[in-house]
Formats: sequence, C-alpha cells, structure tokens
Amino acid sequence: MKKLLPTLLITALATACNANNTHKEIDNNINKNQPAINNIIMVVADGMGPAYVTAYRNFADDLTTEGVDRTVFDRHYVGTATTYPASVSGYITDSAAAATALATGVKTYNDAISVDVNKQPVKTVLERAKELGKKTGVVVTSQINHATPASYLSHNEYRRNYNEIADSYLDDGIKADIYLGGGWRYFIRKDRNLVEEFKQSGFHYLDNYQNLSSLPSDKPVLGLFGKTGLPWALDDTNPHRLSAMTKAAISQLENEQGFFMLVEASQVDWAGHSNDIASAMYEMDDLAKTFEFLEQYVNQHPDTLVILTADHSTGGLSIGRKTYLKAPNVRSDYTWLPEILRSMTLSPEGVAKQFEKNKLTIEQVSDLLNFELTQQEYDRLQTRKSTAAATVDLYYQTPKAERTSKYPPTVYRLIAAELKEIIDIRTNTGWGGISDSATHTGVDVPVYVIGSEKQPFSGVIDNTDIAKGIFKLLENNK
Amino acid sequence: MKKLLPTLLITALATACNANNTHKEIDNNINKNQPAINNIIMVVADGMGPAYVTAYRNFADDLTTEGVDRTVFDRHYVGTATTYPASVSGYITDSAAAATALATGVKTYNDAISVDVNKQPVKTVLERAKELGKKTGVVVTSQINHATPASYLSHNEYRRNYNEIADSYLDDGIKADIYLGGGWRYFIRKDRNLVEEFKQSGFHYLDNYQNLSSLPSDKPVLGLFGKTGLPWALDDTNPHRLSAMTKAAISQLENEQGFFMLVEASQVDWAGHSNDIASAMYEMDDLAKTFEFLEQYVNQHPDTLVILTADHSTGGLSIGRKTYLKAPNVRSDYTWLPEILRSMTLSPEGVAKQFEKNKLTIEQVSDLLNFELTQQEYDRLQTRKSTAAATVDLYYQTPKAERTSKYPPTVYRLIAAELKEIIDIRTNTGWGGISDSATHTGVDVPVYVIGSEKQPFSGVIDNTDIAKGIFKLLENNK
Repeated sequence: MKKLLPTLLITALATACNANNTHKEIDNNINKNQPAINNIIMVVADGMGPAYVTAYRNFADDLTTEGVDRTVFDRHYVGTATTYPASVSGYITDSAAAATALATGVKTYNDAISVDVNKQPVKTVLERAKELGKKTGVVVTSQINHATPASYLSHNEYRRNYNEIADSYLDDGIKADIYLGGGWRYFIRKDRNLVEEFKQSGFHYLDNYQNLSSLPSDKPVLGLFGKTGLPWALDDTNPHRLSAMTKAAISQLENEQGFFMLVEASQVDWAGHSNDIASAMYEMDDLAKTFEFLEQYVNQHPDTLVILTADHSTGGLSIGRKTYLKAPNVRSDYTWLPEILRSMTLSPEGVAKQFEKNKLTIEQVSDLLNFELTQQEYDRLQTRKSTAAATVDLYYQTPKAERTSKYPPTVYRLIAAELKEIIDIRTNTGWGGISDSATHTGVDVPVYVIGSEKQPFSGVIDNTDIAKGIFKLLENNK
Repeated sequence: MKKLLPTLLITALATACNANNTHKEIDNNINKNQPAINNIIMVVADGMGPAYVTAYRNFADDLTTEGVDRTVFDRHYVGTATTYPASVSGYITDSAAAATALATGVKTYNDAISVDVNKQPVKTVLERAKELGKKTGVVVTSQINHATPASYLSHNEYRRNYNEIADSYLDDGIKADIYLGGGWRYFIRKDRNLVEEFKQSGFHYLDNYQNLSSLPSDKPVLGLFGKTGLPWALDDTNPHRLSAMTKAAISQLENEQGFFMLVEASQVDWAGHSNDIASAMYEMDDLAKTFEFLEQYVNQHPDTLVILTADHSTGGLSIGRKTYLKAPNVRSDYTWLPEILRSMTLSPEGVAKQFEKNKLTIEQVSDLLNFELTQQEYDRLQTRKSTAAATVDLYYQTPKAERTSKYPPTVYRLIAAELKEIIDIRTNTGWGGISDSATHTGVDVPVYVIGSEKQPFSGVIDNTDIAKGIFKLLENNK
C-alpha cells in the first residue's frame, strides 16, 4: 500500500462544515478578537480513560492544602468523546482504529492504520497540514511507527506490519520535519537501514536525549531513543522525556506558515495493559508536565491550539476496590492509598529485573521500592522467583491452543506481576481484567483544549469530530 | 447517529464561559430571555460512574442505524464532578458523604448524614427551599430514609441509624410534601408506626404504584412500595417505576411558589455492588425514561432546572475485559457484547430464586433468561445449587474474624453470583473488585443539566459546587 489516495477528505470536510453551519455566527462571535489558528498540537494520551485522570489528581495532590488540588488537565476540560470503532469491530476500539478516527475523521476496523473499512487510504490531518505548507512533527514515547503515530503518517491494513510502516515513512514521501520517539529495531535492520536513508535525505539523526538541546535549526530531525518504545518514565534517564522532546520539537517546527504536531503519551496504555498503577501515574506525570509546557506556549502564542484526548481507556482501572486481601494500613472498604506510589523511583519491572539477577535482602528491595516491604510480601517475591523458571518451562511445553496467554512469561515479568499485585493491595487499586495483560474498555474519554477554538471539540463529541474540527481549522486558516 | 447540536452548543458555550470570563457577554445573551428558575429537580444516579453511561449507550443502541445512537444523557452533558469526601475519609466517598456534599455544599466524613466533620448539622437545599415557601419532595427507589434522601431531609452522625432517621422525618418537623420510595420496615415498626403518624399529620398514604394516578390534590403524600428498597427494575411490576413516581410527584408539587424535588435512581449503585450488569442496565433505563420525561417537562416549563449527577461510581465497571474464560461468540479481546442483556425480563437474582426453589431444565432456565444457556453453563448452576447449602453452613461455622465477607451468603445469592459471572463472560464485562460486593471507586462523575442555568454546573466542578449553585439559584429567585 504505497500510494496516497486522498479519497474521503472532501466528504469529511463537507460533513464537518454541514454539521457546524448553524453555529457559524456564534462561533465567529467567540473568536472575533482571537488570532487565526496557525499551529495545531494534537496530544493523544493512549489508554487514558477517566479513571487515570482522577487517579493522577489524587496522586499529585499537595497534602499541605485542603481538598484535592486541581491539575493542569482540569483547567482545560471541554467534554468527552465516544470511541467505538466501525461496527464490524463492535463497541471497543483498539489504538489503530481510534488513531485513524482522530487522524482522519473516519471510523474503521480494529488494526487499521488510516485505511477505511474497505482498506482504502484516507487522508490524515498531518498530511493535509503538510500540503498546506505547514511544518509537521511527531513526538511519542512508543516506537515512532506504532499505531498512533503511524495513523497520522502512513496507511496500512494491519498495524503490526511495523517494517512496512517504517519503510513507508520514506517510500511514500517524507511527511514530517521532526520525528522523536523509539524504534531502532524497525529503522536499523539487516535488510534496510532507514536511519541512513533519512540522513541521506538531509535529516539530522540523534539517539540521546542530551543532544535535544543542540538541534541544527536548518535540518529536519530524526531522534530515536529506544529499541522499541522508550523506557518507562520511572526508569528513564529523564522521567519527563515527553515534555523534553515536545519542547525541542516545537523549537524546530516554529515558522510563519505554522505547524501541526502529534504528541503521544504512548505508555499510559502500556501501564494499563500490564496493570501497573505506579508506571501509569509517572507516565501521567510526564504528560502533565508536557501539558503545562503547552499551556505556557499557548499563552505566549495565541495562534496555537492544543487538543488533548485519549484513544480509549485501558485495563479497567478502578480507584479503589473491595478486597479481603487487605494491607495492614487499609482503613476502610472505600479507600485509595497512593502514598507509596509518590516516592517510587523505579518501576515494578525495574525492581523485578534486579530481584531476578541478585540475591536481595528485604532491606535492599525496600530501598529499591522506597517503601518498606513486609516479611510476607518479601516472601511472596522470593517464592515467585523460585518457581518462575518452572512456570516459563511449563508455558513452552503447553500446546499453543491450550496456553492461557499469548504472551510468553519471563522470570522478571512473573516477579513484576507479583510486585504489582502487592502494590495494588497496598494502594487498593482495581483492574477490570482477569489476565496478565488487561484489555481496552469502552468508556468515553475526556477531551481538553488549550486555546481559543474550544467549540468544535466541546460537549459529548465523537472521536471523528476531532479530526473534522482540525480539518476545518486548517481550511479556514490557510 | 442522531445528534442534537443546539444542546451541545450551549454546553460548549457554557464551558467556554466558565473557562474564560471574556465570554460573559455571550452567557448573558443566552439567559436574557429565560424566565427565572422557580422549580429545581435534583436527580442523583447513585453509583453511576462514566462507564455506566457509555455502557447504557451501547445497551440502548438502535442496531438499525449507523454508529452508536446518542442517549438523552448526551444531550444535556455539561461536565464532570470530583467526589472525594472530607480528608479524614481519604479519596473515596460513600453515598452519605457524597449526598451531604450535594445537599449542603459541605464535605464531610463517610457515613455522615448532613452533619459536618464535627457532627454539627448543616442546612440542606431542600430545607432552604421549604423555608422559602416552595413545595418539596423526594422520589427514590431505595428506602426513603436511605443515605441519599436522608441527606436532604435529616441530620444524623451515622447513616445506618435507619430508625432514628425515619423518626426524624416527623420529629424534626415534616420537610416534604411528597415522599415516594420504599421502607415499610422502618416506617411500620413494633415500637412506632410512622405511617399512622404521617396520616394523622394529614398525609395521604399509598403502597401500590397503581394508586399513583389518583392522588388527592389537596394533601401531602407518603408512598411506600417496598419493605426496604423497591424490587430491581427488571423484577418490578413496573420496570419504569422511577419515571412513574417522578411524574406523579411533579403533579403534586406544581404551585406558584415553585418546588424543589430530589429524584434518586438508587439502585444503579446496588447493581454495581453486586456486579450485576443486567440490573445495572435496566436501572439506567428507568433513569433514562425519567430524564426524557424531565426533558419534556422543562421544554413546557422553562422556569424549571434539572440537574443530574452521580454521587460516585460503584464496582469498577469496565466495558470489556480480557479473559481466557471466553464464551464461544467472543470475537476478540476488545469487545463488549450487550446483546443478551437487551432481551432479559428478570434479574439474575430473580432467576436464581426460581432455580433454587424448582427443578428447572436447561430449557426452562433459558426461557427465564431469554437467552440459550450452554450445557456447561447450566451445569455450573446445578453444581453451585448442590454445594450452596454447605457454603452457607460453613460461613456460619467460621469465626467472625476469619470470614471472607461480612455479608452472610444465601443459596439463591450464591446461584445468582454464578449466573452473573456467566453473564459477565458472555458480555465480556469486567469489575474492579475481587469480592462478592464490589466497592465504590474514585473516578469523577458526569454532570447533566436540562434548563437555562447550565453555567454554575459546567466544566470540572466539585460535588459541593452543585449545592452551592442551587443555594444561589434559590436566593436569586426568591
């Protein structure tokens, strides 16, 4: 699928214009003193259902003030979006169909990368921005060819065709002026070195965050900082790497014609899938820092609009659960106790890796976690470590059809699962899945807008309305 | 896919106005031709977190139209509310503290009925409306002295002092002109017959929905239709009993001075606690019918304002879960399948009661459920029935401190739990709790307003802001 067919754009625009005609008058009133929107920044928090936003508010709460402090998200809330995919895929979307909806305004089947249900390519807002002479960029914490960025940059009938998608970033014509995220394994391959090809096309390449502060102003940029996705925020050399990358990308993209940028907090979703409340909160924290930076940016550049939403919720996170596996400090059935999360500096997986490799005492594990393990909790980890190898063996001995998970277990992941359950009990956190890798859920997701054009994105909207609104802004202000 | 854009627009404008004072002008424009608010109807959907609203939209979806149809709720969405109680009770509220916040504007501890953290009574919006000469009423599907209605009508340091609270409805002075709901066991007691006392105070009493259509226009009314709460909507003689009661109550309350009414869909919460997705959807359906009626009412009576919110979410409902206990018809990991729920006419508990009492064949159970049980599912129910008595015995033989639940099991409840799990697997529904009675969760809850005064309730607000907004409207329009 290597040729671009700008098919449904006109339909999408007609629909958007038609839907919004009746509001034209008031819309104009609202914006009469505002500059036209020249720059659009679309922020996708992958997997961030409503519970993540409330959980983060509690996690980030300043305990010296009365009540629970509002977050940067609360200041810019405009409504909520439905996320269901094309009816062929039922009521629950995956990241590909949702990103396609956000990028093109078209509902499609799960697994589709900006192709419609007939597998025909559909034009994306990033592509349209590029056509209109704007600079474009993508900044993500996943690999840069993962479902969400791919849906803005590429067209493919199957999201997991990672190499094909990476190839398309060059073969279909270069569509962005800056790419920041992960993905060495897809871009530096035995059969093809796409990094070299990007360089030959005039790109500046970097693979270290430290070099973000010294990007050349006259060259497009490719920055890859991980084999696939970046490390968890909790484990990364810079826990606020999304905000650092966003800041650097904006500097590169600023120009008179304006820019369109996709920013994705990709790993909120990954934390949800692995039922890891600690990592979820630190991915949210990186997102919050990014959004605070963008808030300041719009204050200084009122021709910029920032839209933030999620593609879906992940894991069925619930802030509080009833359980009889109670930690000693749980005060009642109705409780959520984020205290221990606030001091963590390493992800449960990071701790588990060290626990696998070394003979750690209870004090050493407690030091790594920054909270005191009980003897019983420590014993759980030891027991799991001692049985993990057998569990891994058993998995591979079990015929494929009878396996209870499609993901092969590893020793450190089994230890991490135990540790995450300890943390869930301590914090009284619940998850809706019964699995080692929880699911997406269908709940509506929140929508936030910083800037003067809130109306097209306000109230109860559909995820496709976001792309339609962006297309309209691009056409109105070209 | 039907959308009501004018409503969305107003919501959007309200949100925009809330976020930015420069739009004050437009806000005034919206309301300048509106009559003052004379009647206020507060609707509390107990336990209705965001997932319930999306689940209901999918459940109620008209399959003959493209996309998922919007519900009456979507048309009136204005934002979201934080629900945390006073800090002494942590981050998760119970219904008492939340109802106190909604009724008085004051945060308090869990279990408190309109008393503050120092156990001092705090005035409620219903009491203030009464003082201002308005008529007042409460319409609920729980007992009328349950936490939510009690927090509008009474002051007590502990929500479970049910008899004391019932007594206060007379002893502290009669505060409402109409009470409709359940509660015989608290109002007709050995030590005191409050129904008789209400009658002696001039009240008309009824205990059957059928008599709702012939209420005397010149008398206050007490209607009790259940021993504690009413039956599940699915099992009740009128599955839309909340809307029927609301309609009858409004007719009684209409007067020149206006009225304040509390309406509570009490049992969304109870369905969440018992992890019963079927009952949850039919409680939501009764609420939707009620809200549709109120929408019409405001159209005809623009001096009326209707506010709908939840006190908290219950059970950690997730629309979709990943599980390897898959039903044969589950198409992928990302799915929610409400089909079987749509045809049910009896609650899982209702079916379980019949299954306990009678020797039912697989065909007979399937008839009761209105969907075909598999042999394996039927066998699960039979096995549970045969072991249930022993489970009940074991519970009572176990020392109190070692019991894994504070709720004594009964045979039909054990069968119902099995049946609910079968339904969860069929529909791919998840719950955040690991328990026979799931917990409240801390996620922000949606807020809906029908009528001209949306602004005080729009955006990200706190539950106390709802009472504050109502107090203000009462003072402004007295």
